[in-house]
Amino acid sequence: MRAVRVHEYGEPPSIDAVPEPRVAGPLDVLVEVNAAGVCRTDLHIVEGQWAAKSGVALPYTIGHENAGTVRAVGAAVGNVAPGDTVVLHPLATCGLCRACRAGDDAHCADSRFPGIDCDGGMAGLLLTNARAVVRLDPSLAPVDVAALADAGLTAYHAVRKAAPLLRPGAHAVVIGAGGLGHIGLQALTALTAAETTVVDRSAEALELAAGLGADHTVLSDGGQVAAVLDITSGAGAHVVLDFVGENGTEADGVAMTRDAGSYFVIGYGGRVDVPTIDVISREISVVGNLVGSYNDLDELMTLAARGRVALRTRAYPLDAALDALADLDAGRIPGGRAVLVP
Amino acid sequence: MRAVRVHEYGEPPSIDAVPEPRVAGPLDVLVEVNAAGVCRTDLHIVEGQWAAKSGVALPYTIGHENAGTVRAVGAAVGNVAPGDTVVLHPLATCGLCRACRAGDDAHCADSRFPGIDCDGGMAGLLLTNARAVVRLDPSLAPVDVAALADAGLTAYHAVRKAAPLLRPGAHAVVIGAGGLGHIGLQALTALTAAETTVVDRSAEALELAAGLGADHTVLSDGGQVAAVLDITSGAGAHVVLDFVGENGTEADGVAMTRDAGSYFVIGYGGRVDVPTIDVISREISVVGNLVGSYNDLDELMTLAARGRVALRTRAYPLDAALDALADLDAGRIPGGRAVLVP
Amino acid sequence: MRAVRVHEYGEPPSIDAVPEPRVAGPLDVLVEVNAAGVCRTDLHIVEGQWAAKSGVALPYTIGHENAGTVRAVGAAVGNVAPGDTVVLHPLATCGLCRACRAGDDAHCADSRFPGIDCDGGMAGLLLTNARAVVRLDPSLAPVDVAALADAGLTAYHAVRKAAPLLRPGAHAVVIGAGGLGHIGLQALTALTAAETTVVDRSAEALELAAGLGADHTVLSDGGQVAAVLDITSGAGAHVVLDFVGENGTEADGVAMTRDAGSYFVIGYGGRVDVPTIDVISREISVVGNLVGSYNDLDELMTLAARGRVALRTRAYPLDAALDALADLDAGRIPGGRAVLVP
Amino acid sequence: MRAVRVHEYGEPPSIDAVPEPRVAGPLDVLVEVNAAGVCRTDLHIVEGQWAAKSGVALPYTIGHENAGTVRAVGAAVGNVAPGDTVVLHPLATCGLCRACRAGDDAHCADSRFPGIDCDGGMAGLLLTNARAVVRLDPSLAPVDVAALADAGLTAYHAVRKAAPLLRPGAHAVVIGAGGLGHIGLQALTALTAAETTVVDRSAEALELAAGLGADHTVLSDGGQVAAVLDITSGAGAHVVLDFVGENGTEADGVAMTRDAGSYFVIGYGGRVDVPTIDVISREISVVGNLVGSYNDLDELMTLAARGRVALRTRAYPLDAALDALADLDAGRIPGGRAVLVP
Repeated sequence: MRAVRVHEYGEPPSIDAVPEPRVAGPLDVLVEVNAAGVCRTDLHIVEGQWAAKSGVALPYTIGHENAGTVRAVGAAVGNVAPGDTVVLHPLATCGLCRACRAGDDAHCADSRFPGIDCDGGMAGLLLTNARAVVRLDPSLAPVDVAALADAGLTAYHAVRKAAPLLRPGAHAVVIGAGGLGHIGLQALTALTAAETTVVDRSAEALELAAGLGADHTVLSDGGQVAAVLDITSGAGAHVVLDFVGENGTEADGVAMTRDAGSYFVIGYGGRVDVPTIDVISREISVVGNLVGSYNDLDELMTLAARGRVALRTRAYPLDAALDALADLDAGRIPGGRAVLVP
Repeated sequence: MRAVRVHEYGEPPSIDAVPEPRVAGPLDVLVEVNAAGVCRTDLHIVEGQWAAKSGVALPYTIGHENAGTVRAVGAAVGNVAPGDTVVLHPLATCGLCRACRAGDDAHCADSRFPGIDCDGGMAGLLLTNARAVVRLDPSLAPVDVAALADAGLTAYHAVRKAAPLLRPGAHAVVIGAGGLGHIGLQALTALTAAETTVVDRSAEALELAAGLGADHTVLSDGGQVAAVLDITSGAGAHVVLDFVGENGTEADGVAMTRDAGSYFVIGYGGRVDVPTIDVISREISVVGNLVGSYNDLDELMTLAARGRVALRTRAYPLDAALDALADLDAGRIPGGRAVLVP
Repeated sequence: MRAVRVHEYGEPPSIDAVPEPRVAGPLDVLVEVNAAGVCRTDLHIVEGQWAAKSGVALPYTIGHENAGTVRAVGAAVGNVAPGDTVVLHPLATCGLCRACRAGDDAHCADSRFPGIDCDGGMAGLLLTNARAVVRLDPSLAPVDVAALADAGLTAYHAVRKAAPLLRPGAHAVVIGAGGLGHIGLQALTALTAAETTVVDRSAEALELAAGLGADHTVLSDGGQVAAVLDITSGAGAHVVLDFVGENGTEADGVAMTRDAGSYFVIGYGGRVDVPTIDVISREISVVGNLVGSYNDLDELMTLAARGRVALRTRAYPLDAALDALADLDAGRIPGGRAVLVP
Repeated sequence: MRAVRVHEYGEPPSIDAVPEPRVAGPLDVLVEVNAAGVCRTDLHIVEGQWAAKSGVALPYTIGHENAGTVRAVGAAVGNVAPGDTVVLHPLATCGLCRACRAGDDAHCADSRFPGIDCDGGMAGLLLTNARAVVRLDPSLAPVDVAALADAGLTAYHAVRKAAPLLRPGAHAVVIGAGGLGHIGLQALTALTAAETTVVDRSAEALELAAGLGADHTVLSDGGQVAAVLDITSGAGAHVVLDFVGENGTEADGVAMTRDAGSYFVIGYGGRVDVPTIDVISREISVVGNLVGSYNDLDELMTLAARGRVALRTRAYPLDAALDALADLDAGRIPGGRAVLVP
């Protein structure tokens, strides 16, 4: 089969012919990849930013947002069968540690992360396990949901954690109206009756957010903190969801947060830097957010099947993977996401 | 009556004869002060650190940790009567804003803070309102509980917020084994079955903590982070309660926090400064903590009456207030708290 | 002023000229009633069903769903001023007991209930207190929201308690598609992304429910339990909200509840009767629901102002109060609510 | 090996020589049983009460409270190894359904229950799976904890669900001071600072409860409801935990529950029968409780290792199983539990 493989950090990946993976363990699931999302993290991997963290041996196949069709299963697999269409949770977890048993897959003590620390889904076939496969509703095609499997799942997870804080009349700010922010905004509208404000540097992105139901939009032109305070009668928002996490949004986010409110960090790259006197006198919380759980992904697929969450995607053939990466890097896929298809 | 009054920032307060306050409004409560805690914040007030924040007009009477006996009440007061012994919640709140109506007194939209922004309790009498008075169980004397009214209440509030995160088998770290830390440790033991580690720079304070039931104690000598990781099998604690909040405990606290865990900030003076990549990849929360609610204070008094929480105090006559402040400033009240009595 | 007064149980009320109430206490608020909802409870009061429970002395003025304009306030009232339009929480609470201080107004230890245990709002003026008045958004007229003040508030309160149990993909059943059920359904849609099924004996009521967004409707014709089990793949619903609570819905509701699910009781008249072996082997909960809190009412008004919750009402002049009661008793106000206006 | 087997309902089991089970599936775990608890449910099984519910084919081996030593594991088992001492969660769950993935093992969609629906632990060896085995702290012997594996786990689970409702100053009533009630009381003391009252028909059991820290004990002699109301100033308890669930405790339990409180059903045999008007006007909840999760069992073992929960047991050799069953049936093991040992 063909696969998009990184041979050397700092060099573009190549598209190679590689042997097909096979079912080996009793819980293995072999999936024919019908769609693989292209994510900014893939650019970071190619650049080598994840080299130390993942410790993966080169060459290997990238692609961590995958959906497809089950082709073969191990002897102990009972939840899917060949022919089922599935979206893949990014982690193949153990199911035995305390975190797994508490529904907290992201903190599994013994997981693999295909596309990060072993071969991923920009290929004909991907090997994962029974705990990673969510069967798709017949109304959903793999190509429509692959890009929700990691980035979308992270946005959904953050909003689900924030939802109990967002009663009717509460205010939620979304910083960053890219792919994650759009999923976050749609999830906010589905899960809460909060008032929403979206902040972004792009007028075009804000227009799209307004179309998705944002109550207010604020152009990030230097006056964004004042604008949010103005919209919230000077008090700030009960929850700020920061999908950027760098270039000043960290300070903005804290400043936009109401006393007794919460600043949710989803994007990264910068620093949260706040005097402890402010943390305590304002009694604010700073809340980190990683990828969602398997059950979160199942819920996100329910929202997708009900038409409550949708993502604009542009499809590229697998052989055009380098074009997709280049377009992403150059900002030529505004508001949407690239997906590789066979 | 006599009162400890600040006339000029940077100068020691003086003990003056001042007119007695009187009940004026329908919800006013006039309390004869039987005990007034002396707190580090009083030193900061005298130094002028709170001048801008409080905006109080000088001269005024300090003292924000008070307990005593009701002497007179306004026409609409039904919850206490003259002769009742009471401990005072530090804030006199409005009872009408959304925060008050949600049980979140600390964020009342229209409150007074006697001893901070108006005349306090280092005096013969103090004027507060019906929403600030918690009637004492007959087993509790004002002198035993006054020092719990603000500092102790803050420690209790933080522990109560943390308790749902602390199942049996979870680990809680207490940084700082002074007055607040001791209350925090006792509250942890009362409210949870978590394993506890106390970290401090003083071997004497650690010994006292061990006597109060700490499972482990760690001397803060440079190796404290490694020691906590060692105690927690390398993972860190589910909750870290930082009663210091400066001089490096901020970084220590984050480093001692387990992935998916929470770092609770109670002390202040320093900065929380964490890369967003760590906040999200470790999915940690930083949680600010302000003073507790009226109901929190009521619960703390229940624990005190049941002997689950106690505080070592040293009594000084009101006229020796300057000695008490000086002893506190010089560190001559180790592990305990000073209380002024008539 | 004119007022609808009960003189003898079992006899129709009469419309009398009575003296106007006046502000007496410091927290009193005098409201000109612009709209008073007519509720089935009013029929029960007239019949004498509440005589023992309320202990009210006859004659007195009924009307416990009120909205209007503030005319005068006591000396200690700061949250409203004459001229403000307001909706009234049904209870005038004390603000000092533990329940009030925890946001649980319905269990206030010292409250009055105008229209039930003292003079109510089917009159020109009503005397309540500062803790009962929610200021209206300019977009809301008293006549549009009066009928939400008690019945609607109860429905909202139940849904708000149920919402944390209703993740996307969970199923909620609403039994009874009258006024309360419609508010409940709209609140479910606003606060959750659950799948909804409405059960009623009236095809017309079900049609209205479908128009309000119910995913499924089931005619209560004897096959309603089987129909709900069929819709839920045999498992039953995660939450069943029973707005009827008599005539067999109690057993239906338990039977429609999924293992580990919750049966919420809102309507009344019948009995919950379940073997303990079923309660434990199915691990179900039966959850009682009383009227909502002041903050609940504030949230419901926010939903109303945002167009997320609306109620069909028919206005009658105050002098036609007996016609309104008769029409309600005879079932001539289907799907809607009667409201008295000056 | 020898095993206690039921051949015909209504007849005493016999102790037979049977073939040893073997590891067959990849997640199988074979455990040498060092201790098997004898439970009232075993008597019910022998009588045939569970015949229809379990659908098990006779003859089969009973015993559903087991602890022992791992002897062999399947190819995919990584969490235990031969030689490890373990206590067994009663269910062998799938790990793939939504309930398992949410930490709710008791509602697994595809589980086996050794001792109920397949061969259990009153035998030399027991076959379970990797998801059922909790490794024991070296300080705990199998014989000390086997009887906690089902009954104790159920009591712990109920208390853990109740704990968030039990702030300091709240009141918890325990009805039934047998084995489950004692675990429940100890768990209450470990997890909360609530005030506790224990109700039982046996003065001896109450004495034991007082020794375990009950604040109050009430003899169930007809005046028990009045006594509890008296202890709680007429209001009733915030939580009532009913470990009996028959013979009138159901009505007692509801009557002892405070307005806005919760009645937890753990024992069974009777009926909960309450008018809906009481359910709603008092806003009470009735909460069913089944066996705890794997993580609950892990926490209970932590409490046992810390000496916070202990159970009095009497050991019988496996070959004396009929004596143990007879002693249990005749009430000759007061306050304690029988355990079979090799």
